Amino acid sequence: MNRNPQLNAHGELQHLITLEGLSREILQGILDTAEPFAEVAEREVKKVPLLRGKSVFNLFFENSTRTRTTFEIAAKRLSADVINLNINTSSASKGESLLDTVDNLAAMQADMFVVRHASSGAPYLIAQHLAATGREHIHVVNAGDGRHAHPTQGLLDMYTIRHYKKDFTRLTVAVVGDVLHSRVARSQIHALRTLGVPEIRVIAPRTLLPSGVADMGVRVFQDMKEGLKGVDVVMMLRLQNERMQGALLPSPQEYFKYYGLTPDKLRLAKPDAIVMHPGPMNRGIEIDSAVADGSHSVILPQVTFGIAVRMAVMSMLAGS
Amino acid sequence: MNRNPQLNAHGELQHLITLEGLSREILQGILDTAEPFAEVAEREVKKVPLLRGKSVFNLFFENSTRTRTTFEIAAKRLSADVINLNINTSSASKGESLLDTVDNLAAMQADMFVVRHASSGAPYLIAQHLAATGREHIHVVNAGDGRHAHPTQGLLDMYTIRHYKKDFTRLTVAVVGDVLHSRVARSQIHALRTLGVPEIRVIAPRTLLPSGVADMGVRVFQDMKEGLKGVDVVMMLRLQNERMQGALLPSPQEYFKYYGLTPDKLRLAKPDAIVMHPGPMNRGIEIDSAVADGSHSVILPQVTFGIAVRMAVMSMLAGS
Amino acid sequence: MNRNPQLNAHGELQHLITLEGLSREILQGILDTAEPFAEVAEREVKKVPLLRGKSVFNLFFENSTRTRTTFEIAAKRLSADVINLNINTSSASKGESLLDTVDNLAAMQADMFVVRHASSGAPYLIAQHLAATGREHIHVVNAGDGRHAHPTQGLLDMYTIRHYKKDFTRLTVAVVGDVLHSRVARSQIHALRTLGVPEIRVIAPRTLLPSGVADMGVRVFQDMKEGLKGVDVVMMLRLQNERMQGALLPSPQEYFKYYGLTPDKLRLAKPDAIVMHPGPMNRGIEIDSAVADGSHSVILPQVTFGIAVRMAVMSMLAGS
Repeated sequence: MNRNPQLNAHGELQHLITLEGLSREILQGILDTAEPFAEVAEREVKKVPLLRGKSVFNLFFENSTRTRTTFEIAAKRLSADVINLNINTSSASKGESLLDTVDNLAAMQADMFVVRHASSGAPYLIAQHLAATGREHIHVVNAGDGRHAHPTQGLLDMYTIRHYKKDFTRLTVAVVGDVLHSRVARSQIHALRTLGVPEIRVIAPRTLLPSGVADMGVRVFQDMKEGLKGVDVVMMLRLQNERMQGALLPSPQEYFKYYGLTPDKLRLAKPDAIVMHPGPMNRGIEIDSAVADGSHSVILPQVTFGIAVRMAVMSMLAGS
Repeated sequence: MNRNPQLNAHGELQHLITLEGLSREILQGILDTAEPFAEVAEREVKKVPLLRGKSVFNLFFENSTRTRTTFEIAAKRLSADVINLNINTSSASKGESLLDTVDNLAAMQADMFVVRHASSGAPYLIAQHLAATGREHIHVVNAGDGRHAHPTQGLLDMYTIRHYKKDFTRLTVAVVGDVLHSRVARSQIHALRTLGVPEIRVIAPRTLLPSGVADMGVRVFQDMKEGLKGVDVVMMLRLQNERMQGALLPSPQEYFKYYGLTPDKLRLAKPDAIVMHPGPMNRGIEIDSAVADGSHSVILPQVTFGIAVRMAVMSMLAGS
Repeated sequence: MNRNPQLNAHGELQHLITLEGLSREILQGILDTAEPFAEVAEREVKKVPLLRGKSVFNLFFENSTRTRTTFEIAAKRLSADVINLNINTSSASKGESLLDTVDNLAAMQADMFVVRHASSGAPYLIAQHLAATGREHIHVVNAGDGRHAHPTQGLLDMYTIRHYKKDFTRLTVAVVGDVLHSRVARSQIHALRTLGVPEIRVIAPRTLLPSGVADMGVRVFQDMKEGLKGVDVVMMLRLQNERMQGALLPSPQEYFKYYGLTPDKLRLAKPDAIVMHPGPMNRGIEIDSAVADGSHSVILPQVTFGIAVRMAVMSMLAGS
């Protein structure tokens, strides 16, 4: 039997690499654990001692100030010692290998690696290597790897949906935009399916759809107006700047016309629909400011819940 | 009635954006609060728990290792969690807007933003935006914005003067150098007036004087020797490197000859005059090493008092 | 009598600049102090409050993420407040001088400077300046200066040897590689002699041997196979990338052939010999992966002991 490499022998979460293959119980367990941390954030003193004396290394092989900040603040509120390492891959190639770097930091008695990497699979490679060298007690959290996964983003999205919609099993959810290049979309779709969302829609131009997307159990729409009809949740994706100059899209203006979320298009969704975005937003490209800042938007609560979810994951993995 | 946007409904300090418009009582209150923090610094354990569990974000849109360090050490000695964000404006322009960045960090339950920005008014814009979005409980401290203000520098200068001279109301103070481009000078002059200094002099070449400087209630001197006669306090300004290559000045050597503070020129001041400089110094340009390191210099005590003043401001704003 | 500038009037360690001139008692005292810290690292909560409220500044004028990380984690586990300053020398030359920077940070009530600098002697210059200005209570730890010394590396190497071999006075130790440019080698050889190692060998091509190396009390070998015969400890040095392109060496392949540590060559050493390397390794150049990851290698334990040794040094200098 092929055990999920993220789970230990007791079926508990050991690493968080991807939401794929995690059971509904585990996902719900993380969301439940996050609830009190969301309340902690409202308190005068936002600190809890769950990771006191633990060493968390933010291992960022790809620059992302925003994501690094969310993990740093989450770890500090858990009272961990946090070390930020921005390892730019050009200098890494001159120096030592990824696994030598990991071995070294592990030898410094790390308790957790939060890993961001441009290559899909890097966090898994690290977890595998730690297991192979008898250091599986060091936990790995994927903070985004290539086009593969961004599980804490997926989890905070699920937390947000549950917070506003309570029951996953009656929802229609649309994921809109650059699904092809999005690790976020992948994590979202896996989680939505696992949590029992009956209708998941993907809305994108043909050039931004991965081949075989229909096999993921989603309904595909190229017409955004069709796709938004009657949805409860609209999950916008960020259009990476490099795509806009590429051959895949005619122009940012054209993209906005057909796939930008405007108040007009949003009116096709349910009246109480919520709008989400992983940030940072390209206003006027994938989303109109009137929507981003409008009454349906839960984009900033997503950020707040993101801290709570990261605190939950970190404390479940390494808490004493 | 136009309420000072830095004060809350009870007239207490809510943000620190500029010294302009702050009352003598508030300025003195900050200086008084700083006194015990100056003593804390002498203790074995320099830490106090006033900001325990609070999240302070150092939001530096303009690089300044020195100023960032003073705020970081002040916040850490207050037991805050500190997150450093160096947001270089070129990459910011590619990404999200200033206010989207602020919204995001605010959603991470920030308690305080320490803001450095090349544009005058950026910290005020942030404070305004926080108020407009119902987040005025997050405090903003201006760590230097464009040519506008650098209020904690102004405050530490006042602390230093009070420490050595006790009574502001009998002093003659000269501010010397590049007043035109100096946010420090602006903050100093506002504070000196508010605290009742009867004679404030500004000494600078015509090209480095802002138009309308006389309206600020100061006496203007282009001849440094005239201006220094009988002063109690000499506040030197830093000559930015870019000015030295510009059209405003003949040459660094020429500048030093006419406006560099030498032991000879200093002899024109009162025998117990103190010499101040906000750092970093250009030795041999605006100040002679013999003066910088001499017995009149209180340049290093300024740095020490700067930590205490920043601890005072931060704890007054966000302390529990 | 010329007192060692690293010691205070009572003969206690005041700074750690170089291992040269430190007595066997002092070296052993540091190693003894490190023992319990090595155990701390195994505990659930790895934090001890010995440096609580102390301000440790990592003053890195030369970039070294790895070394900076070891000092940062060591200081945090001692509960110090740590401030990282990467002062790149090009911008430093535009700004203020080394000693003005030091004066400023000292005025912020620093308790310790951990200094890395490309110029030999910079940490000593800083310690001297602190003494000259009455601030000798601020401790300086050399984290590597030019070609001069890297004393904490030397100490962790001694800790490692003592851990595996117990008694220094019966050992044959070989230092292999680019001795000419290595501050590590210098620190190692001083420590090995002080601790009573009877036979210290240096193995290197003629072009990588410092002139007068034999005066350091070592036996010199240009033939690696000769030099490794019967040794208890093999200390490999890192071959800096810039050397490989230089005129001193024919090619990396050639270097590996003659001076790379392979299982074959290692077989000439004692059967229970240990292999050390300060990292980061150039696999396939100075060391074969089969050796680096093999049963004789204690390269990762070196890293672990390195944290303990740095905690020992920092707490001996600044602990309350």
